[in-house]
Amino acid sequence: MAETLREELIQVARGEREADLVLKNARVVNVFAGDVHMADVAIAHSYIAGVGEYRAHQEIDLEGRYLAPGFIDGHVHIESSMVSVPEFGRAVVPRGTTTVIADPHEIANVLGLDGVRYILETSKYNPLSVYVMAPSCVPATALETAGSSLSAEDIAPLLADKWVLGLAEMMNYPGVLFCDPAVLGKIDAARGQPIDGHAPGLSGKDLSAYVAAGVASDHECTTVEEAREKLRLGMHIMIREGSTARNLHDLLPLVTPQNARRCLLVTDDRHPSDLLREGHIDHLVREAIASGLDPMLAIQMATLNAAEYFGLADKGAIAPGRRADLVVFADLHDLHAEKVFRNGALVAQDGRVLPDVIHPAATALRSSVNIPPLGEDAFRVPAAGERLRVIGAIPGQIVTQKLLLPPRVVDGQAVADVERDILKLAVVERHLASGRVSTAFCRGFGLQRGAIASSVAHDSHNVIVLGANDADMRAAVQEIVRMKGGLVAVLEGRPIATVPLPIAGLMSDQPLETVARQLDALLTAAKELGCTLHDPFMSLAFLALPVIPALKLTDRGLVDVTQFRFVPLFEG
Amino acid sequence: MAETLREELIQVARGEREADLVLKNARVVNVFAGDVHMADVAIAHSYIAGVGEYRAHQEIDLEGRYLAPGFIDGHVHIESSMVSVPEFGRAVVPRGTTTVIADPHEIANVLGLDGVRYILETSKYNPLSVYVMAPSCVPATALETAGSSLSAEDIAPLLADKWVLGLAEMMNYPGVLFCDPAVLGKIDAARGQPIDGHAPGLSGKDLSAYVAAGVASDHECTTVEEAREKLRLGMHIMIREGSTARNLHDLLPLVTPQNARRCLLVTDDRHPSDLLREGHIDHLVREAIASGLDPMLAIQMATLNAAEYFGLADKGAIAPGRRADLVVFADLHDLHAEKVFRNGALVAQDGRVLPDVIHPAATALRSSVNIPPLGEDAFRVPAAGERLRVIGAIPGQIVTQKLLLPPRVVDGQAVADVERDILKLAVVERHLASGRVSTAFCRGFGLQRGAIASSVAHDSHNVIVLGANDADMRAAVQEIVRMKGGLVAVLEGRPIATVPLPIAGLMSDQPLETVARQLDALLTAAKELGCTLHDPFMSLAFLALPVIPALKLTDRGLVDVTQFRFVPLFEG
Repeated sequence: MAETLREELIQVARGEREADLVLKNARVVNVFAGDVHMADVAIAHSYIAGVGEYRAHQEIDLEGRYLAPGFIDGHVHIESSMVSVPEFGRAVVPRGTTTVIADPHEIANVLGLDGVRYILETSKYNPLSVYVMAPSCVPATALETAGSSLSAEDIAPLLADKWVLGLAEMMNYPGVLFCDPAVLGKIDAARGQPIDGHAPGLSGKDLSAYVAAGVASDHECTTVEEAREKLRLGMHIMIREGSTARNLHDLLPLVTPQNARRCLLVTDDRHPSDLLREGHIDHLVREAIASGLDPMLAIQMATLNAAEYFGLADKGAIAPGRRADLVVFADLHDLHAEKVFRNGALVAQDGRVLPDVIHPAATALRSSVNIPPLGEDAFRVPAAGERLRVIGAIPGQIVTQKLLLPPRVVDGQAVADVERDILKLAVVERHLASGRVSTAFCRGFGLQRGAIASSVAHDSHNVIVLGANDADMRAAVQEIVRMKGGLVAVLEGRPIATVPLPIAGLMSDQPLETVARQLDALLTAAKELGCTLHDPFMSLAFLALPVIPALKLTDRGLVDVTQFRFVPLFEG
Repeated sequence: MAETLREELIQVARGEREADLVLKNARVVNVFAGDVHMADVAIAHSYIAGVGEYRAHQEIDLEGRYLAPGFIDGHVHIESSMVSVPEFGRAVVPRGTTTVIADPHEIANVLGLDGVRYILETSKYNPLSVYVMAPSCVPATALETAGSSLSAEDIAPLLADKWVLGLAEMMNYPGVLFCDPAVLGKIDAARGQPIDGHAPGLSGKDLSAYVAAGVASDHECTTVEEAREKLRLGMHIMIREGSTARNLHDLLPLVTPQNARRCLLVTDDRHPSDLLREGHIDHLVREAIASGLDPMLAIQMATLNAAEYFGLADKGAIAPGRRADLVVFADLHDLHAEKVFRNGALVAQDGRVLPDVIHPAATALRSSVNIPPLGEDAFRVPAAGERLRVIGAIPGQIVTQKLLLPPRVVDGQAVADVERDILKLAVVERHLASGRVSTAFCRGFGLQRGAIASSVAHDSHNVIVLGANDADMRAAVQEIVRMKGGLVAVLEGRPIATVPLPIAGLMSDQPLETVARQLDALLTAAKELGCTLHDPFMSLAFLALPVIPALKLTDRGLVDVTQFRFVPLFEG
């Protein structure tokens, strides 16, 4: 706060100077006092100056509606919404979210620091405060080719940015436990700032060690027992309700008035249709209250607790000197934002961002899909044995099975066999234009014809393609190259449905509603190709992630995750 | 934490390296989870490494006793205990207090930055962590002569010290509200650090303004209503139970599980006999629990809440990576410390600090009582009117009355009149050896003979003396000069009881027990002189404080506090 600004706030608070705006007759949800009380809120220069009795020329009479601090999402990958930051803001701000702490892990794996800076740049001039955590695990493993590699030396200058709050989820907990200097170096770089954890199932002595190293939160708890152990050891518990991982109802029994201060609400990954249908943090607050949680605790978890954890001293509460980020709603037990203020300005009303509030940044971003033309034999697999290692997809899960099956061989080549649901899978390196292609086989998708492909493939986001024949697979990759990234379903050489994701091959430049429609059409197309999985593109996106068991394919080859090493396609 | 230390903690936590000490079978008071659970606590290099199941060669079996984080006093003037920092530590550490946040306001008014540095120096090598807040109001007013003056420029370098946490109680709230640049400059210097408030009775728009300026706490609340308003506006509420100001029982009804996180327990000013008889923060915790407060909330208020407010990330809880500052006790509902650990070492047991734990610093401190020899007529008051302005002392209060009484005149001089309980009062400037003496008259002490004097006289701590005759008053001041500060009762020219306070004229160099005995003897002596007040030295100490109504005497003259100006001794 500049000196003159602070003096103006003092004068507005004292009633010596007129407020820019007074919200009259608010039922203030006071997260400090843990109570609800009537008051006017006087706003000046994007801050709250006074809470009490105020008048001004510019007034909005809330007529006794509730006024709460704007919601804060403590951990979100905006990339998972598949839209740009401005469009993400357009989707979540009308829901009452005014601040998110984003981990740009996905775009950083594609574009490195350029990707992180792109998120920061496109966050400007929008009605959503987007803070960033410095990605801690780029690349996620040494078994794949990512678009970048971020060391402690890369992260340190990033952490000096006032919009960068700390170190993002430290997934590499073995690196922490074994005192890997490169890993501890990143924690050192962020010392004094929050260091987020990611340690599903870690417990006992190893959990103590992880906390002793400086890791301060976890959003991967799935049971009350796991969460209680982490809470007791001092970790902040981020209760997650994403699109895939949904832990809210399982973890709510953990929360008591005595420990709620250490709990936050986060979304992690929310897909377009869930953002549209359910909402964002407001959905978690509603669900928690509907499940019987004290509304005050639920709102504290969605506001003050996150502000305190991240050191955002001017957010998370309605009080003099805090940012006027505010949500208006009528029913505490079925909370739906009617009006949303950010920095003292009305930015959304009745579920819509007001006109002229969104200003998409004209930020140039280099194309991230760098693949040289593929030859017709790019996916050819010479038969080299009797027993083929096949990835077994499991519906609704990201773990896979290791299968050993006889190959179908045609002209000395192992080929897809739709009769037995053994499809060909390929990962095409897309960052360096190396021309590297790896191939394998996969069962469980049920595809009868055509091919599906995606430039969203965790965590390195190379292009992954699955098909009933090589020609359609090649056409699918070509379409992704043409779109500069995206999702596609191909039949007989032609795309029958696409979701263009030109931003890093991860995010659309279209509104959320458009992307949701495109995704619906894509899933319908995949079903027409014979796909039996509920969301084949979600399953596809995790087939390249070599930290989840059991058998995965990266651009560098087939990985037996249980042994953490490459294995040949044919056994023996 | 050094890199190698952190790695050692990780290895101890994992069980790969042996802990320095394991506390076995502790009933851990877990201020994060809000529950109590059995565990071992592994300690290495003064930190907690792991909480779980641990073994080591060095073990202490707590046999199911409670283990809580060491208590933190969020606001204390150590000077009020009248002992040095090491002796204060000897008194409070066995009570379970391992950290205090001290406001060296009194010694700073006497010795300026030298006084603050003296507190910091003498805090070293002791079993008590003493953090300091930079004094914000030295001198307290322009109506008196203090020993120093601290501007924003003086405070700024102090704030860079890691043991200086923020800005101490900003008593000058008019200066804040009127945007006095010198006052706002101090707040600016401490931006980003906690800024303590002191605003008894401030409410409404002015309170909003005070908070908007950046003030973050208050310890002057006397009613639930006052505290609730401050809490709602975002202030941390420091619930004070001192020796004079006792607010705990009045404020406890404020505390709910939803807002307790914003409440701390503080002592502000505790006199030697109360520290000995009642205790320190442990007394507040016991009282709060006895009054029905959930023990978990009471202990959180005495530990984690203070640590969070002051940004002490490594204190206030039992968890890996935190300092091993710990209290052992047997009964949660009648909490008495049996063992106290600081930085992982046992420092007190069964009410006593262990031998060799206290290392009083041999820190030189210049004499602070600088008074040239007083002439026999130093306190002479020529009669100059018919109506004398007389200060009316009120038993047990620090406010006074403005009285107008006819003087007793002898040989043209106004003199003390013990018949009517009108005694002579004088303030002798003691910092600059200016020889300045101001005189007035006071009713309410009941002194029949002799004189009493003190070098403790808020806030500038000039020497204040009250007597039945000028000769004894002069002898009293001379005795204070001889002692380099202290309290004295004089009869017929000879001291009959003294409390030497050679450290800045505020603190003894003797143990607390000795000072308490000396004080008892002094009060007995004062009674023998005819004093009717319960604690005449306490009342005396506030007769020079020109911010408390209605009539006060500083070294510069008689102050009508309601008009904030000097007035002559005689009216008209």
